[in-house]
Amino acid sequence: MRVLVIGAAGMVGRKLVQRLAREGQINDQTITQLTLYDVVAPEAHREAPFEVESLSGDFAAEGEAERLIENKPEIIFHLAAIVSGEAEVEFDKGYRINLTGTWRLLEAIRGADYRPRLVFTSSIAVFGAPFPTEIPDDFHHTPLTSYGVQKSCGELLLMDYTRKGIVDGIGIRLPTISVRPGKPNKAASGFFSGIIREPLAGVEAVCPVDPSVRHWFASPRAAVGFLLHAAALDGEQAGPRRNLTMPGVSETVGGMVEALRRVAGDQVADRVRWEPDPFIESIVAGWPTTFEAKRARELGFKAESSFEEIIRIHIEDELGGKIS
Amino acid sequence: MRVLVIGAAGMVGRKLVQRLAREGQINDQTITQLTLYDVVAPEAHREAPFEVESLSGDFAAEGEAERLIENKPEIIFHLAAIVSGEAEVEFDKGYRINLTGTWRLLEAIRGADYRPRLVFTSSIAVFGAPFPTEIPDDFHHTPLTSYGVQKSCGELLLMDYTRKGIVDGIGIRLPTISVRPGKPNKAASGFFSGIIREPLAGVEAVCPVDPSVRHWFASPRAAVGFLLHAAALDGEQAGPRRNLTMPGVSETVGGMVEALRRVAGDQVADRVRWEPDPFIESIVAGWPTTFEAKRARELGFKAESSFEEIIRIHIEDELGGKIS
Repeated sequence: MRVLVIGAAGMVGRKLVQRLAREGQINDQTITQLTLYDVVAPEAHREAPFEVESLSGDFAAEGEAERLIENKPEIIFHLAAIVSGEAEVEFDKGYRINLTGTWRLLEAIRGADYRPRLVFTSSIAVFGAPFPTEIPDDFHHTPLTSYGVQKSCGELLLMDYTRKGIVDGIGIRLPTISVRPGKPNKAASGFFSGIIREPLAGVEAVCPVDPSVRHWFASPRAAVGFLLHAAALDGEQAGPRRNLTMPGVSETVGGMVEALRRVAGDQVADRVRWEPDPFIESIVAGWPTTFEAKRARELGFKAESSFEEIIRIHIEDELGGKIS
Repeated sequence: MRVLVIGAAGMVGRKLVQRLAREGQINDQTITQLTLYDVVAPEAHREAPFEVESLSGDFAAEGEAERLIENKPEIIFHLAAIVSGEAEVEFDKGYRINLTGTWRLLEAIRGADYRPRLVFTSSIAVFGAPFPTEIPDDFHHTPLTSYGVQKSCGELLLMDYTRKGIVDGIGIRLPTISVRPGKPNKAASGFFSGIIREPLAGVEAVCPVDPSVRHWFASPRAAVGFLLHAAALDGEQAGPRRNLTMPGVSETVGGMVEALRRVAGDQVADRVRWEPDPFIESIVAGWPTTFEAKRARELGFKAESSFEEIIRIHIEDELGGKIS
């Protein structure tokens, strides 16, 4: 089976590729060839038990998607995106990659006359405030960011191209991924990782929102699990509503830091400084807090059950089990 | 005030233009110039109390939207669309006009550096079955037709371009308009008018669905009222959720024919023949039946209160008060 990962150089993409290389299969089907693609050529993972090709390019350029699916990969993971903060500032760039790019990928598949499984990473940013206490699966999509609008349009196209038999799509609305390893990215949600990651690494971190701010999380490990589960999911079972809100952990920023205190002690938790930033606060105020995620759970998607568990996964996966 | 009507040759467009010509103003602002646009040049209404320009062209062509807004119309009615049945068969054409065209219009406005009121006619086709008994305003958008997907993407773009201060948009999700005068169009919903219009004109009509099929309706007169109310609406009052489900009348096909019987007698009502068509039935099965439409009613949008009233309006507006 041939697999294509678009956006393979990103954090979730890299972790997905690591896991594919380790397991060598998806849903008991042996991977024979893996194509990695990003704006910069992703690391090629020479230790993988299958052929790995690494490509770079401009995802939204005309003809690019056609090039990517030339060998008709049976499974395509589409993770490429301009993240929320950047899409908010770079209006054209966000629309070009997140909407035009996704549409062109679907059109390329239509032209290629085969029907791959396409796993599309959408986001809970397709929802916009005001929200009910727990957001049901049938809550409307009124995004308050350009990123959320672009993802929501991508979902709609995925659904229609699936209904028309052009592609076999599954859209997964990822919770905010925390704790992200490495450097902060341009996402407005970056601090949701920083306030855990930096203190654990012995560094001070700024929290730009009030401790009472609640949000919806899953670990990078859970995100990779969602992607693999979506790749293997029975499309008939998913039905025509192909975009699913992933399960996650609902926690306040204050609760996150208290979980950090329980896991790593006062010295670590006290490295968080509280410095409200009105620009970040205004963006985050439009974000959802708690989801029901009933359909996705019923379809077998699994997330962590507490933020403490999320922190322990970070320590295990990124810090070799050790705290500075 | 300058006004532009895109899609002015369609049924609702023509009725809107008639009313603008009659009233000469919108919301107490005198209309000084009206531009009509469609794929074929609309009738120019020489009796109007303002200058009328009639243009034709390909709405989705590059540069076309820029041409249309060259004189910076303060109010733009965007009614142009490939209707549901045609968009379902003509995949490229539907996406090109309904999505690319709408997006290009928004981009042209962005480039023109002014902020008009844009009234966008969306549709209840943005919703897809299964539905609750009464669909609330915050029900999710899972359209089951390409037309519904295209309208839903248009709504999302309208919302984002409004949020960014590029345009001052109001999207109105029209109920199925009944009774449409004139010839049937390619919409799968055509019979919802035909089973009233043809019998009233002394002609037999075929109903391709079961009498129990329920749907959501407003008259052409109400549709024009929605458009004018949307043009005058205070954007601040509408808030960031700029797409509104219009009020309407929920009625079954059987109930429609019974209303016809009450208004026009057995001889007229018996002109309806019941001949189920599986293709039409499968499309209509995914359509919504009853909406709450709470926000739109609160914002002052008004529809009829019964299907009988809708029939009487048709007789008044189209048949000079007389029944064949």
